[in-house]
Amino acid sequence: MSGIRIEPLTREAFSPFGEVIEAEGSSWYPINAGTTERYHRLATVESAGADPVIGISIFRGDGFQFPVHLSVLERHPVGSQAFFPVSGNDYLVVVAEGGQGDKPDLATIRAFLAKPTQGVNYRSGTWHHPLLCLEREGDFLVVDRVDGAPNCDEVPLEKPLVIEKEE
Amino acid sequence: MSGIRIEPLTREAFSPFGEVIEAEGSSWYPINAGTTERYHRLATVESAGADPVIGISIFRGDGFQFPVHLSVLERHPVGSQAFFPVSGNDYLVVVAEGGQGDKPDLATIRAFLAKPTQGVNYRSGTWHHPLLCLEREGDFLVVDRVDGAPNCDEVPLEKPLVIEKEE
Repeated sequence: MSGIRIEPLTREAFSPFGEVIEAEGSSWYPINAGTTERYHRLATVESAGADPVIGISIFRGDGFQFPVHLSVLERHPVGSQAFFPVSGNDYLVVVAEGGQGDKPDLATIRAFLAKPTQGVNYRSGTWHHPLLCLEREGDFLVVDRVDGAPNCDEVPLEKPLVIEKEE
Repeated sequence: MSGIRIEPLTREAFSPFGEVIEAEGSSWYPINAGTTERYHRLATVESAGADPVIGISIFRGDGFQFPVHLSVLERHPVGSQAFFPVSGNDYLVVVAEGGQGDKPDLATIRAFLAKPTQGVNYRSGTWHHPLLCLEREGDFLVVDRVDGAPNCDEVPLEKPLVIEKEE
């Protein structure tokens, strides 16, 4: 299988899957007597069903080296999940469209390179790979449901896929 | 008026006002086939009333220099507000207990020095000063209500207070 091309992470390219959280290129308005620029509502937290509880967690991810081997995709059917790097790491954002039989369509897998100033918010139901922090261990702020509602479908990849470093 | 002493930001000291969001000293469990440590639910998003919408924003704060002059306190009565630094800045967290007549009790003002690895989540109704990023401009990830519900009470300080740098 040929490798997966790495694309830069942009709002437009990522829009089928969720939101890119970044100040660059976003509008803002002044608050706090002009001492703060508010880049408002770059992402919206989704949650379906009764009495959702939203929490803020930290994910400390191992540093992956290229070539990166993908082995599983997952989705959160009743809530969005946002990641923002807080240790200055690049990371890979790997997503796929939904296919037949409640599984991802592996032919649609895309990989985006996220910069340390970029977060992502996976929309409810978006198939994505678990955290792929690059090069060295890094911390990510995570905003998602924490009420214990069943909210994770996982599909192992029968044939592992590989992402090579772009030259 | 004598200056306000700066305290280190710890969970215990901050507990009357909200949650400290930090991995250090927090428990975690492994996820993602052991490649990620999840420091779960370090903070919980609060929202009262019908159909709250929670959003993720970026606040870009001016860099304040010591002595820092305080001029206003605010509170969000129907929702929590979380801040996490994403540009490596220290910042000041200034809070007060509620006093008479729906105003903060200025005699209870406390100032905490937050490190770049520490976020805070102001509980609903906690009186606090707007963002006080230190030294240089910095970005903060913010999680709060974005549905437009009336959610900000502001009280100007009749007599400005000053925080001096600790030696």
